[in-house]
Amino acid sequence: MVQVTVDKVGLDQDGEQAVVLLADLTKSTLIPIWIRAMEATAIALPLQGLKAPRPLTSDLVISVIEHLGAEVVMAIIREIKDGTFYASLVLTRGDEEIEIDCRPSDAIAVALRRASPIYVMERVLAEAGIRSEEDTVQ
Amino acid sequence: MVQVTVDKVGLDQDGEQAVVLLADLTKSTLIPIWIRAMEATAIALPLQGLKAPRPLTSDLVISVIEHLGAEVVMAIIREIKDGTFYASLVLTRGDEEIEIDCRPSDAIAVALRRASPIYVMERVLAEAGIRSEEDTVQ
Repeated sequence: MVQVTVDKVGLDQDGEQAVVLLADLTKSTLIPIWIRAMEATAIALPLQGLKAPRPLTSDLVISVIEHLGAEVVMAIIREIKDGTFYASLVLTRGDEEIEIDCRPSDAIAVALRRASPIYVMERVLAEAGIRSEEDTVQ
Repeated sequence: MVQVTVDKVGLDQDGEQAVVLLADLTKSTLIPIWIRAMEATAIALPLQGLKAPRPLTSDLVISVIEHLGAEVVMAIIREIKDGTFYASLVLTRGDEEIEIDCRPSDAIAVALRRASPIYVMERVLAEAGIRSEEDTVQ
C-alpha cells in the first residue's frame, strides 16, 4: 500500500461531477477519482479545515463510530473494476480490527475528518496513477 | 411522541431545496421539513424500495452500525430552534441504548433503510404541524 494525500478537489464545468486528486507523498504520481458533485463538499470542507453549518452525513458516520466505541484507523482505495473504484474504511475497537466496504468518496471524507491516513493499493496505483507534470518536466 | 411516516419527498422548482412531508398515522397532520436537495435522494430511494447503483453515505451509516454490533431502533424529530429541526437516531447494542444527534434528513434516511419507526415529539408537532387539507374539507 502507498500512502496518499488529497491534492485537490474540483468540479467539472457543468458542476455535476467532481474529481478528487490523490497524490503520493512525493507528489510524483497522481490518482484522479471521479465522484459525484454532492460528495465533493464532504471532502472539500475538512480539507480546508472548515465545518458545515449543519453536520453532513459523513459527520454522522464519525459520530456513530465514536458512540459505538470505535476509532477510524485508515481509508484504503482497494481496487478498480470496470472503471469504478472500490474502497474500505478500517476501524479499531479495542483489539478488534473492522473493515467496512464503501465508496472512495466516503472513505476519504471520513479519514480526513479524523486526520487518518489514506492508502492506495499498488495495483490501483499501477492502473490509475499518472505521473505528475512537475515530475515529467524534470 | 407521535409516530409518523414519510408521506412525500419533493424538490422545489429550481431543484436546490427539497421538502420531506411527514404525516401522522391518521394523515390528519402533516409536518413539512425543508432539507437539501442532495439529501432528498437518500430518502426517496428507500421510500420507493430502490437502491442506489453505488451505496450512498446513509448506507455506510447502516453498515458501520451493523459492523459494530448495533441496531437501528428509531428516528426521533426532537425539536425546532430558530426554524431548524433537530433529530436523533436511537440504536441498541445488547442492553445498551445509544442516542446520536443528527439532521432530520439523516435520521429519516437511516430509519427508512431499516424499516424502523420515525417519531416526532409533541412540541414539534404543535409548532410545525399543519392540518391536512383532506381533513379540513370534512
